[in-house]
Amino acid sequence: MAGVPANRNTLLAALCLTIATSAQSLLTTASKNSKGSYDYNVATVPFLSELIKLCVSSFLLYRAHKADPRGTQITTDWRNVLLFPVPSLVYLLHHSITFPLLRYVDPATYQILGNLKIVTTGLASVFVLGKRLPQIKWISLVLLTIGTTTSQLSSSSGSIFSAPAQGYLLGVANACLSAFAGVYTEYLMKKNDDSLHWQNVQLYSFGVLFNAIRLTVDDLSAGFEKGFWAITLTDGYDVVTVFVVLNLAFSGLLVSVIMKFADTIAKVFATSLAMMVTPFAAYFLFNIVPSFPLMLGIVIACISVHLYYASQKDLFELSEVPKAGLTKIPSLKEVPIPASDTEKTEKV
Amino acid sequence: MAGVPANRNTLLAALCLTIATSAQSLLTTASKNSKGSYDYNVATVPFLSELIKLCVSSFLLYRAHKADPRGTQITTDWRNVLLFPVPSLVYLLHHSITFPLLRYVDPATYQILGNLKIVTTGLASVFVLGKRLPQIKWISLVLLTIGTTTSQLSSSSGSIFSAPAQGYLLGVANACLSAFAGVYTEYLMKKNDDSLHWQNVQLYSFGVLFNAIRLTVDDLSAGFEKGFWAITLTDGYDVVTVFVVLNLAFSGLLVSVIMKFADTIAKVFATSLAMMVTPFAAYFLFNIVPSFPLMLGIVIACISVHLYYASQKDLFELSEVPKAGLTKIPSLKEVPIPASDTEKTEKV
Repeated sequence: MAGVPANRNTLLAALCLTIATSAQSLLTTASKNSKGSYDYNVATVPFLSELIKLCVSSFLLYRAHKADPRGTQITTDWRNVLLFPVPSLVYLLHHSITFPLLRYVDPATYQILGNLKIVTTGLASVFVLGKRLPQIKWISLVLLTIGTTTSQLSSSSGSIFSAPAQGYLLGVANACLSAFAGVYTEYLMKKNDDSLHWQNVQLYSFGVLFNAIRLTVDDLSAGFEKGFWAITLTDGYDVVTVFVVLNLAFSGLLVSVIMKFADTIAKVFATSLAMMVTPFAAYFLFNIVPSFPLMLGIVIACISVHLYYASQKDLFELSEVPKAGLTKIPSLKEVPIPASDTEKTEKV
Repeated sequence: MAGVPANRNTLLAALCLTIATSAQSLLTTASKNSKGSYDYNVATVPFLSELIKLCVSSFLLYRAHKADPRGTQITTDWRNVLLFPVPSLVYLLHHSITFPLLRYVDPATYQILGNLKIVTTGLASVFVLGKRLPQIKWISLVLLTIGTTTSQLSSSSGSIFSAPAQGYLLGVANACLSAFAGVYTEYLMKKNDDSLHWQNVQLYSFGVLFNAIRLTVDDLSAGFEKGFWAITLTDGYDVVTVFVVLNLAFSGLLVSVIMKFADTIAKVFATSLAMMVTPFAAYFLFNIVPSFPLMLGIVIACISVHLYYASQKDLFELSEVPKAGLTKIPSLKEVPIPASDTEKTEKV
């Protein structure tokens, strides 16, 4: 997106996504009842959030079209529309793998395996979208994976090597699905100059549809034990649950902006950093002291973001000669050391 | 040291130093008796090792001088010779801080604080030697510090924040002393074109002297309970102890080569990597399974080495367009994504 003036807005969107993702996990925790379970049907949250996103996007599309009917490009070719259910389908598959996966690995290992999606997103960007990433960006993606993993280290991480092979295979499959869904959405958003709102309307329509199907299937398999979901939709909701839904919808809209004007990798950076913002918010909210591995992980993740987005000049340009504050020993300045050793010399 | 043909030899020396440093900790452990303590006087090891280095360097100096009397530069100006006791003195100070430091912090925290010497060595190289390091090298030094710290994470690392302020101050002081001793030695080795062997003869002469003084002071404070050290010098030595001494001498000689032809930072990289080689050697020798944090630490440290020594071109040049192995969906190649996004765009 070289030269897109929306650059600053994209950065803002990414920052908002970090905060919203972090808020999502805090709100979800806050929405639990005193026994640690949920009083509401958890699967209604993504349904309602897709519905809200659809309403918002339809409204924005209507307004944009009214203001500038020629500038608001809308492709209604069915071959194009039919590309939009794919992300919903992939996410559904991704979701259905999670439960068998958790049968093979414990939650700590599950969380650590989830970090693989950072690297698989890079791979998918290259192999599916045909992007080209220089070595430094690969290094920063690996560092981000390690940083998020380090931040999750706990006494239970010892079990990471004890899962059966199926567990790791499913974990890798899950990371690949997640990456594919991401880059495919990016592809949808960038493949033509259609209005973002029109693209979202298509995306969220299928989102609403597939979530409705899922809720119906759940009801069928439970024999309508708790009634029909469309009737009991907001049973057990309180004000926190409403915020859970609204925040999820807000996050989704931010993701589509980032996909359109930046890329999936920027989204992955934003959501990965959220994993580290959350414990700090937990510190201020619940006085839970952040762990030492978390702090190490945060530093690694920040370095990773910097390496990914810093310019070559910033990284390699030599800083000004330091002021001789500590160099009171004048003879020490006589040392014949070459000023520049950035190149191939001293390859130790 | 741009253009020095000894480049490959320096790399070899650094690799040998990594192995020798790793072997040192394994040999030292192996030299313990069945009760976990030492049958010999531990302080005799550095003394004997300095003595061996002095003998080896004297012999090499004699040979070099015989072969090429004009090419073997020897500065005997006393003002120059008097610079050489400084490293021994600083190491003595460094050593004497260790015990009060261990009164304030536990061994795990002590080990983690020790990693600060990586960053202080970078600072000392800049402020004492007047070197200039680009941002990417600072980042890799910070990463190496984090990598070694991550590799040391254990259930006891929780205590890292529980030490009193004096502990951290002494830890930082210790890291600064270690860094200063390092860059000062580098300065000595590079300040003129004197023969490396002559520089070593001076360095190790003072090393022998100060270690002898230390052993005498120890004996005096113990009231010659165990006799005079010069007489009981090798009491309790076995074949492993001999290897401990020889390996320490060998490591020391390697360090002086690295200081002369590369720099202190290369030495720090070599010895830091050794901390990670050791547990792997322990795996093959004693079947102790390496921990997960250790593996994360190793990857971080390897990335750090690569970032420090890789060329700008290697890091930023775009790789070849990937072969369209997975890109079977032809329409996915139509996405109008800019090929190069290495520059300031997408600053998220």
